[in-house]
Amino acid sequence: MEKIAIVGVAQTKYERRKKGEIFYDMVYEVTTKAMEDAGYTLDDIDNVITVSNDFWDGRTISCMAVQEVAGAHDKNVSTVEGDGAFGAFYGAMRVLGGFKTTLVVTHSKGSEGDSKVITNAMFDPVYHRALGLDAISSSALQAQAYMEKYGITEEQCAMVSVKNHGNAKNNPCAQLPMNITVEDVMRSRKIADPLKLLDCSPVSDGAAAIIIADKDSAKKARNTPVWIKGIAHCSDAYFLGDRDLADPRALKDAAARAYAMAGITRPRDEIDVVELYDAFSYMEPLWLEGMGFCNQGDGGRMIEKGISVKGGSLPVNPSGGVLSAHPVLTAGLARIIESTLQLRGEADERQVPGARTALAHGINGPCGQSHCVWILGRE
Amino acid sequence: MEKIAIVGVAQTKYERRKKGEIFYDMVYEVTTKAMEDAGYTLDDIDNVITVSNDFWDGRTISCMAVQEVAGAHDKNVSTVEGDGAFGAFYGAMRVLGGFKTTLVVTHSKGSEGDSKVITNAMFDPVYHRALGLDAISSSALQAQAYMEKYGITEEQCAMVSVKNHGNAKNNPCAQLPMNITVEDVMRSRKIADPLKLLDCSPVSDGAAAIIIADKDSAKKARNTPVWIKGIAHCSDAYFLGDRDLADPRALKDAAARAYAMAGITRPRDEIDVVELYDAFSYMEPLWLEGMGFCNQGDGGRMIEKGISVKGGSLPVNPSGGVLSAHPVLTAGLARIIESTLQLRGEADERQVPGARTALAHGINGPCGQSHCVWILGRE
Repeated sequence: MEKIAIVGVAQTKYERRKKGEIFYDMVYEVTTKAMEDAGYTLDDIDNVITVSNDFWDGRTISCMAVQEVAGAHDKNVSTVEGDGAFGAFYGAMRVLGGFKTTLVVTHSKGSEGDSKVITNAMFDPVYHRALGLDAISSSALQAQAYMEKYGITEEQCAMVSVKNHGNAKNNPCAQLPMNITVEDVMRSRKIADPLKLLDCSPVSDGAAAIIIADKDSAKKARNTPVWIKGIAHCSDAYFLGDRDLADPRALKDAAARAYAMAGITRPRDEIDVVELYDAFSYMEPLWLEGMGFCNQGDGGRMIEKGISVKGGSLPVNPSGGVLSAHPVLTAGLARIIESTLQLRGEADERQVPGARTALAHGINGPCGQSHCVWILGRE
Repeated sequence: MEKIAIVGVAQTKYERRKKGEIFYDMVYEVTTKAMEDAGYTLDDIDNVITVSNDFWDGRTISCMAVQEVAGAHDKNVSTVEGDGAFGAFYGAMRVLGGFKTTLVVTHSKGSEGDSKVITNAMFDPVYHRALGLDAISSSALQAQAYMEKYGITEEQCAMVSVKNHGNAKNNPCAQLPMNITVEDVMRSRKIADPLKLLDCSPVSDGAAAIIIADKDSAKKARNTPVWIKGIAHCSDAYFLGDRDLADPRALKDAAARAYAMAGITRPRDEIDVVELYDAFSYMEPLWLEGMGFCNQGDGGRMIEKGISVKGGSLPVNPSGGVLSAHPVLTAGLARIIESTLQLRGEADERQVPGARTALAHGINGPCGQSHCVWILGRE
């Protein structure tokens, strides 16, 4: 792959914002900060990619507004559906396609919408929607299937929540830094069996932006460029019943493609830090299996052994992850941003010492129907 | 620009389909037909781009279903917001970005939604939505502004409807082939002054797909490849009051970028056929000005002189255009497909003899906030 890099990143604090506070301001904030971070002005930007967040506030087709607030007049501009990590994928393609630079910006105002109603609309109108499936209830089915098939325990999943909320104390952008114990998670209110409140991510508002540049433009950036080594985006069956929910096939496909592109043959040895999309605690072991960091069914043991804690041999979500801040459709871009900061050595208290290669991950659709995998490197 | 080509195209007939008839079938139909057209199988496809058509049927987040019906498992797959022409832009970037092939597929089931409610949601929630603006009422404002500023007449616009509905008689996919006169248009029911019923496009259901390939893969295709010479996608201000509605600035920007990429300096002489997004009759002269085919304000005279009729020196919308079939978010891809057929010499009764270079055009957002311009060539 030709050399292209992430040269600028910015994110807001993730939190619940006031009702009626329009998202324009936060889009403007991260757009301008990402340019500052890169040492670029709007004249240095060729392309703008925004991410669709339609009707998450219950009323808005947002792309029309966001394109302008992001300074996209006179740029090639497009809007991508799904998480920001998927938008960033398009951004990378723009630069690989011959353009110099692309700004990718995404926002969330999920606190205004009714996420049960909206995520119910992801499902087939005839067979599945009437069952009342939504993001939480379908994830509970996945957790159940995963736990039963491989003997993953609720306690192992609880350890993910404990780790990630603890990590969040080092991340000023996180919404839920917390000192909690496995017992706290186990005793927290049942949401949808086997998911309890502390197994679930919160609703967060916020915005994030990155700038991707070709080799020549990257040289002009103020910061150390972080190089994009491999990217892939794969999708699984639409009907949940057509999938083995304990086997994230689309993630395996995407990881295989991204590793091949990056020349990675031993991910467990070659990758120094992972930022993955843990919307629910069980997702961390399940996605780690899909990424090939352990054998299928061994994710729970990997957590138990402490491999993924901050000082472990493969730190996962030192930022606190999605469990500690879940701006829907922005959280995947936040994973890319956190990975970039790690590789720059600018992750402050959450820095993984000497990190040279990172994996950032985004999902879209129920139970991770689509997965996006990014391999980033320091040089 | 590196050589990339359109190697397969397919579209359904555009018409009103039965309520409840789910769009999966039409997506499957055009996907398989586009592959047949190219002489490809699913194994030859690297990437799939679908186009967001969320909530146009009043209920569905469609991308989840469409990705699977389009055979996207194990491919890099993304969903783009806006018209199919914008989706195709991403498809081109995928191939320029190093992949071999991309399938782009889009569908419309606009007949099931309430387009007034949906297009009202494009506008700012605070300042504009309460005014009741929607696609039709905002276009009436644009028509008014354009006519007043340059003395464009309702009769000149009516001539566009007469021409395009007449052209549609040669297009088996068109919904509204009609023999009508300028008087018929002028006497048709007033919708929103100055727009009358026959100045407006219908609501159509349907689907369309294209396959884009790199040079080597194009050689393996069954059909003559149609080469992508230039593409651009630009956007204007969000607030209508911040734009001169009679001056399509984003289209000028996009056309200038696409011409530069294609090495076109005299568009009027170098382009043989145009397929543009005429959602309303006044748009044809206005977009022709924006594309630089005549001076600003001269679009009406260009229509009057018969330059854009089928046998004229610059045939515009020999397919019948969007006035004769308006599958929302699919109609721009239909323009690319019609241009492709023209350049292959396979446009049957609507063929422009000897066409070697075509311009295809898509819009998105109120009054053409975004414009996408494609320059296609036979070799």
